[in-house]
Amino acid sequence: MANWDKILTDADRAVMARGKWAQRAGVGKRPALILIDCQYYMCGIRGAPDNAEKYPLACGEVAFAATDQMKRLLDAARAAGIPVIYTRFVVDPVNDDVGMFHRKIGAGVGRGGNLYFGGTHGAEIVDDLRPLPTEIVLDKKKKSAFFGTPLISLLIDRQVDTCIIVGGSTSNCVRATVVDSEQYNFFTVIPEEAVYDRLPLSHQLNLFDMNRSYGDVMPVNEVLAYLHNLNGRAATD
Amino acid sequence: MANWDKILTDADRAVMARGKWAQRAGVGKRPALILIDCQYYMCGIRGAPDNAEKYPLACGEVAFAATDQMKRLLDAARAAGIPVIYTRFVVDPVNDDVGMFHRKIGAGVGRGGNLYFGGTHGAEIVDDLRPLPTEIVLDKKKKSAFFGTPLISLLIDRQVDTCIIVGGSTSNCVRATVVDSEQYNFFTVIPEEAVYDRLPLSHQLNLFDMNRSYGDVMPVNEVLAYLHNLNGRAATD
Amino acid sequence: MANWDKILTDADRAVMARGKWAQRAGVGKRPALILIDCQYYMCGIRGAPDNAEKYPLACGEVAFAATDQMKRLLDAARAAGIPVIYTRFVVDPVNDDVGMFHRKIGAGVGRGGNLYFGGTHGAEIVDDLRPLPTEIVLDKKKKSAFFGTPLISLLIDRQVDTCIIVGGSTSNCVRATVVDSEQYNFFTVIPEEAVYDRLPLSHQLNLFDMNRSYGDVMPVNEVLAYLHNLNGRAATD
Amino acid sequence: MANWDKILTDADRAVMARGKWAQRAGVGKRPALILIDCQYYMCGIRGAPDNAEKYPLACGEVAFAATDQMKRLLDAARAAGIPVIYTRFVVDPVNDDVGMFHRKIGAGVGRGGNLYFGGTHGAEIVDDLRPLPTEIVLDKKKKSAFFGTPLISLLIDRQVDTCIIVGGSTSNCVRATVVDSEQYNFFTVIPEEAVYDRLPLSHQLNLFDMNRSYGDVMPVNEVLAYLHNLNGRAATD
Repeated sequence: MANWDKILTDADRAVMARGKWAQRAGVGKRPALILIDCQYYMCGIRGAPDNAEKYPLACGEVAFAATDQMKRLLDAARAAGIPVIYTRFVVDPVNDDVGMFHRKIGAGVGRGGNLYFGGTHGAEIVDDLRPLPTEIVLDKKKKSAFFGTPLISLLIDRQVDTCIIVGGSTSNCVRATVVDSEQYNFFTVIPEEAVYDRLPLSHQLNLFDMNRSYGDVMPVNEVLAYLHNLNGRAATD
Repeated sequence: MANWDKILTDADRAVMARGKWAQRAGVGKRPALILIDCQYYMCGIRGAPDNAEKYPLACGEVAFAATDQMKRLLDAARAAGIPVIYTRFVVDPVNDDVGMFHRKIGAGVGRGGNLYFGGTHGAEIVDDLRPLPTEIVLDKKKKSAFFGTPLISLLIDRQVDTCIIVGGSTSNCVRATVVDSEQYNFFTVIPEEAVYDRLPLSHQLNLFDMNRSYGDVMPVNEVLAYLHNLNGRAATD
Repeated sequence: MANWDKILTDADRAVMARGKWAQRAGVGKRPALILIDCQYYMCGIRGAPDNAEKYPLACGEVAFAATDQMKRLLDAARAAGIPVIYTRFVVDPVNDDVGMFHRKIGAGVGRGGNLYFGGTHGAEIVDDLRPLPTEIVLDKKKKSAFFGTPLISLLIDRQVDTCIIVGGSTSNCVRATVVDSEQYNFFTVIPEEAVYDRLPLSHQLNLFDMNRSYGDVMPVNEVLAYLHNLNGRAATD
Repeated sequence: MANWDKILTDADRAVMARGKWAQRAGVGKRPALILIDCQYYMCGIRGAPDNAEKYPLACGEVAFAATDQMKRLLDAARAAGIPVIYTRFVVDPVNDDVGMFHRKIGAGVGRGGNLYFGGTHGAEIVDDLRPLPTEIVLDKKKKSAFFGTPLISLLIDRQVDTCIIVGGSTSNCVRATVVDSEQYNFFTVIPEEAVYDRLPLSHQLNLFDMNRSYGDVMPVNEVLAYLHNLNGRAATD
């Protein structure tokens, strides 16, 4: 579990205690697993020596490690029969349909590199987490999985009360999705080892911020136990 | 201007350069000033010795300093004649209308202290930034000023293309509003000295994250110059 | 029950049969009652001879009749212990915060008459349906109860799966709310005698359209039976 | 232009006059053309004798006539250089991603017929209105073009202030899109001969309702003149 003690001062700890921040919000009875942007442009290719050159946004080793943890959660989610929903960040290679973000990262139509343009390898979901035909993949243009997608309607249709959110990056799309999940009033779970970021401090601080105000950061093993117990309950319902 | 060099490693800097993150996105021609949750529960009372006890969520000195900067921006916005919109976080003192957040901070109906319940002093906007009768105040239940409020419709009605976002806290409501502003494709400006947070590291890292992916963190003086020039342009239009 | 046969031609009926439109979608287990804009500006005052002059948007007799039916549903909802949520259309008397609608009805700040401006009698919920302190009232600026309000978050927090939508007018705010309810994938129920409209044909056609594509138009008595049964189930759960 | 006099009673006309409904809201300076669901499942195939059998939701002749008018508007929009955005209603052929609507029309995964399932002919945009590679096509799961799509962000990015909405059906997707367009505070134009419906009375009444409360129903020729003038203005700007 994240050791935020290392990054908090005594004054910070007093602030946290005074406001009673970072309580456990808990979990509900009907979770969904939401996998955020598990695409090659985000990870690179496992074992390839030149990810940094070929995939300028790739997170590399931290992404591969998180992918292994996501696989454990994906297997458990499938065993429990809960909804599994993927997102992809996929941008039109011809029209600018992403707006401001391209201004922030100096990217855009016509820029080279393996990014997230539709039809390229970078936009594909990594083989390790390949969706089943019965699992929905939502393409999005922005950070939050809820923004400009049918996600909220799908969750209500499946009567989901808890969003388990994994993938990357912690400080961009995961956090934006976690914030919206809380705003919609879903119980929100962030399995710590199953999210990742390009920047270690952004990773750590965003876990801290999310656990403080939005959702429960938990070890993957605790989430697996939750899913396993669901499965048992489902069997006897 | 934030000196992020202090918190970035060489490896971080390489990541940032490779992805071309944190470019300037720029500004548009029709800004609005959006003041986030400038309420007593967020600040405490200037000069009072017991803010920490009476207002368990108050940010104190950093909030008062940011308020002074917000006042400069507010005066300039009024002079330029641009839309000025306030938000308040106001919670029903009887019904639970805030959902998950109260689970995260161990708060809720009936808890004492000067929080953000409707009708209490904590919920009021601070006198230093008192809205004019011609300025709209939106009550919200969640972090983002866009979530569950008419803000997006107001901005479209006023043909706004740029959101200047000030107030607090940097790592909660300011960031959530900035992320949505980018998601809607507004040019997004965060005047650095006019936002504040309870926790210094969360403040700094969230400024860094926002400047990396969502909007332009600028010194207040640069934003004042932008507003002043608008004013001139408006005069000769 | 609405006799749409009177307004459908044989060709219309063939179209409906071919597309299998207007099936019963059914109801869920956790309904909420949503009362749309039950305000004096919408109804006028029961028994007053001059509603048409004093309240230029008042629906009068059809509104009073629907209010009586709403009261039956409200009593049943309270007995069943389900969430009850009211909306009000309340417009800022100083600032234009309603946008396009005022262009369509030639209204606006400064126009006389008992409309829906904050602080006026027209904006108040009618006494016959007065909310309890434990019932939430949402102010809105647009037709749909979901648009620019925290409604979706409240429904998810209460784990609602079914929206029972009453009030007025059928062809404006009720329909817009029903469409959004379907879009979010809630089971959607429109108790026929508990919605009303200024214009008889708009009333009838909108009931027909809603029943065709969005939700189930039912007699009030059927909805009462549903709520009564819920109550029984809740008792033995 | 629609002759609503035929469907309004004297009492209706008094109601309309008293409330000052159905004023012209006007148009802005930066329109976009939005083509709703111009797909084979909605139209059928021009000249085919068996559209009613093969395409159970096809509108046939009224759709072909409206398509001709849409083509005129599309040509004018392209000449004026304004944004052109298409929507398609496209449903996953394996997973149920459409929710409530399938309950209302007794459809769903596995039902035969040429409907709107991804990869089928029914889901394709008709050849007469084929999008250019530089024109964005948004897939949606619900009636409103704004619901669960990136449309609002695209319109803000292009600084659009006016939505010209064409396609079908008048009483489903066109109306839901028009209502949202007004709710977001865009000027909203419905070119009368360029929208169509399966049911003549629903068509007429929804045009009336939209013109009363949401947008301006105009003859196509008037919209063409507006686009032509824009073009002229753009040339001399």
